[in-house]
Amino acid sequence: MNKLLILSSLAKEYHALLEKANLPNLTIQTTPSADVNIVFGETGMIKKGLASLPALAWVQTTSAGVEALIDSSLRQDYTLTNARNVFGRLMTEYVFGYLLAHEKQIFSRYKDQQAKNWNHSNSGVLYGKTLGLLGVGSIGAEVARMAKVFEMNVHGYTRSSETSTHVDKYFHPLESNNKLFDFAKDLDYLIIILPKTKDTSKIVNEKLLNALPSHAVLINVGRGNAVDESALIEALNQNKIAGAVLDVFEQEPLPQEHPFWTTKNLLMTYHTSAPSLPEDLVKVFIENYKLFHAGKSLKHLVDFERGY
Amino acid sequence: MNKLLILSSLAKEYHALLEKANLPNLTIQTTPSADVNIVFGETGMIKKGLASLPALAWVQTTSAGVEALIDSSLRQDYTLTNARNVFGRLMTEYVFGYLLAHEKQIFSRYKDQQAKNWNHSNSGVLYGKTLGLLGVGSIGAEVARMAKVFEMNVHGYTRSSETSTHVDKYFHPLESNNKLFDFAKDLDYLIIILPKTKDTSKIVNEKLLNALPSHAVLINVGRGNAVDESALIEALNQNKIAGAVLDVFEQEPLPQEHPFWTTKNLLMTYHTSAPSLPEDLVKVFIENYKLFHAGKSLKHLVDFERGY
Repeated sequence: MNKLLILSSLAKEYHALLEKANLPNLTIQTTPSADVNIVFGETGMIKKGLASLPALAWVQTTSAGVEALIDSSLRQDYTLTNARNVFGRLMTEYVFGYLLAHEKQIFSRYKDQQAKNWNHSNSGVLYGKTLGLLGVGSIGAEVARMAKVFEMNVHGYTRSSETSTHVDKYFHPLESNNKLFDFAKDLDYLIIILPKTKDTSKIVNEKLLNALPSHAVLINVGRGNAVDESALIEALNQNKIAGAVLDVFEQEPLPQEHPFWTTKNLLMTYHTSAPSLPEDLVKVFIENYKLFHAGKSLKHLVDFERGY
Repeated sequence: MNKLLILSSLAKEYHALLEKANLPNLTIQTTPSADVNIVFGETGMIKKGLASLPALAWVQTTSAGVEALIDSSLRQDYTLTNARNVFGRLMTEYVFGYLLAHEKQIFSRYKDQQAKNWNHSNSGVLYGKTLGLLGVGSIGAEVARMAKVFEMNVHGYTRSSETSTHVDKYFHPLESNNKLFDFAKDLDYLIIILPKTKDTSKIVNEKLLNALPSHAVLINVGRGNAVDESALIEALNQNKIAGAVLDVFEQEPLPQEHPFWTTKNLLMTYHTSAPSLPEDLVKVFIENYKLFHAGKSLKHLVDFERGY
């Protein structure tokens, strides 16, 4: 009999959904015990529980990011799988919401309304614009697919994979040190969807921000570590880029005294671009549990070395 | 030799673009003369010039709406073609910009930012929602296509045509008097894309607004006559629907004293959802001119009787 421990702030909802699924050879609990061999839940809570689970064989996270568990001081003697193919369409809706809000000038049209100003000037369009993906994993591939529907040009900067056929032009760091700046210089939009690893730390720094055109807007839906926050504030204040939309930050929740709250041309959301919806994530667990139960290789395996 | 008269506030731009196209057997002018047989331009300016063009054979408008020319007191002894397949992608960007702004709560997220409030509550999603098209012409078909990419359900209310395969369910007025209310009752979003005719006047009235669910949002990108403005204000004030986005109005520019400027849950734009971009519209003229020159039937013919 497999013993599943759910570690999540939404444990009740997950429990109810999984009970309903009636999975074979599985008992489900929400408090730890020594015979637990499977954990499903949030990385922060799992990290705390790791030491007290001697029989642990497999962890399925409810997030895409798993950096909390990638730490050489923590045990790595179990199979770790993350949540993929779940957040793509949510983040795609978020990204295109803010892209279109920018082009359609949704905020300034509202200001005109408040001023009773019939402002007949034209809005911008997405079609024909160039969107750059910094990171082309499963989420980036979804964004790329939508960008092509909006008839945009899609550039992708990625370490190795060229899995998305919706990317018109790929750039690789291994080709030359300047590939990142070649990638940046033609973009209207830079969409950052990188996992948190040592290689991605502050990849969006002063030099990269200088390489972007001054009309460019960046959106970060990956992890806060990818952006050098001081350099971004400087770039926005000096109009080196036209705007930024941030859903993730170095420190979350963002401290009250952080300058981002009031930085010009910066819009913030609160790590809300892709909520973990239990009905979606339970499907990921169920699919993988069936493979686990059958003794097959699991989907969405995380490489502890690579960090994602 | 064909003589083309351009009647547009952008006549210079159109002239330059058409000169470049080097069309056979065509001279181009921007002031009227008795031998003009083709007019290309804006309906309002064309209406004023109609009487002084004895040789007129064909009018190509730069707009989709042509109601200014549909008037039994005006001559109808020429071929009238309007601009189609031009505004679809522009209006689609506009519609999805506002749909996503609503689901992603872009305005209230910004208010949270101003209040330094880390509001981690979930946003809504478009996928799975139901979008209703009131009018399914070539623009509605483009909106329907995009709605399917966002995995929405698409309902369409249309007099006769079922040309879009992206509409999941059609409703027709001829089937019964209640079809319009059957159509309305399941919608999350009502998108109004109707031409201005006597049949479309105030089709969105108190009864229809009452039939919509209270969480529904409507967007009007067609013509202002379709909406009973007093009934809409009443519906918004009484929370009978959740919001409205209006690009078109009974009277444009909207008078300063009109209550819409300050109606709650109403966002306005200024007949800007689909700007007439000369480079796009010149293509429509060129395509039709080639047919005209070859003595073939033109595209995008307007039926004076039907009004569109």
